[in-house]
Amino acid sequence: LLIEHVLHTKGHDVRTITTSATVADAVDELRRHNVGALVVSESGSTIEGIISERDIVRALATDGAAVLDRPLSDLMTTEVATCGPRATVDELMRLMTDRRIRHVPVTDEGTLAGLVSIGDIVKSRIDELQAEAETLHEYLASGAGAPLSSSSNAS
Amino acid sequence: LLIEHVLHTKGHDVRTITTSATVADAVDELRRHNVGALVVSESGSTIEGIISERDIVRALATDGAAVLDRPLSDLMTTEVATCGPRATVDELMRLMTDRRIRHVPVTDEGTLAGLVSIGDIVKSRIDELQAEAETLHEYLASGAGAPLSSSSNAS
Repeated sequence: LLIEHVLHTKGHDVRTITTSATVADAVDELRRHNVGALVVSESGSTIEGIISERDIVRALATDGAAVLDRPLSDLMTTEVATCGPRATVDELMRLMTDRRIRHVPVTDEGTLAGLVSIGDIVKSRIDELQAEAETLHEYLASGAGAPLSSSSNAS
Repeated sequence: LLIEHVLHTKGHDVRTITTSATVADAVDELRRHNVGALVVSESGSTIEGIISERDIVRALATDGAAVLDRPLSDLMTTEVATCGPRATVDELMRLMTDRRIRHVPVTDEGTLAGLVSIGDIVKSRIDELQAEAETLHEYLASGAGAPLSSSSNAS
């Protein structure tokens, strides 16, 4: 399964926010869109960074409530792991596990083309298992699971 | 693959916190243990609730920084989805997808016996793919992939 298939189901929309927005702004946007991370982008198509729920909670632990007034440029992760639309779900699972991250922006020819979360990856695996079960069910229902029946019909 | 196998790899330790602790305390504990959720428990073996990074960021959005001084009993999720050690990884993926949650406490005979995160689930899938690849590699290296070689040896 390829990431482009995951995006086909999920959609290509990515919630972005600018570097000059504050952490409080990001907290509002995360809630408004019910997501776990925002891509920090000036143009909406480039990637300046990423800010996640985890980044915010970790900053609260070190700096307290004052962190809410700081600009995202102070807090965001700037070394953003990305992937292309032709990456596989297995590759993305490995990347998320190795780097302990839960969100990976997808870029296509240098432009932001989607955002895949660990929840999307798990959902795609569930969908795959479901499709496999349905295929098997249809196969058995078609009688293909009983190869001798057609020859006994012929007699 | 069963959840008890995931816990065998991951360990049975669960980070807990009491209901009277504040959100600020939870933020500190999440950072100290580098986890995304804490089980709220008075005794360490019962489950009164669960508090996640998401719960905290959502509460910040609605109530602002004042939320940090509130007790966890105000904020925690009290209807906690749990599973037993004999649940399958596939079942847990489905539960996490359906309820949009990333952490599920494991209970064994009514006692807290572990906590499985969506990251643990994805890691277990990666480990499974790795084991499958190694089995296939050994099978091919053993010559079993070329069934005619043993009969030609015998001649």
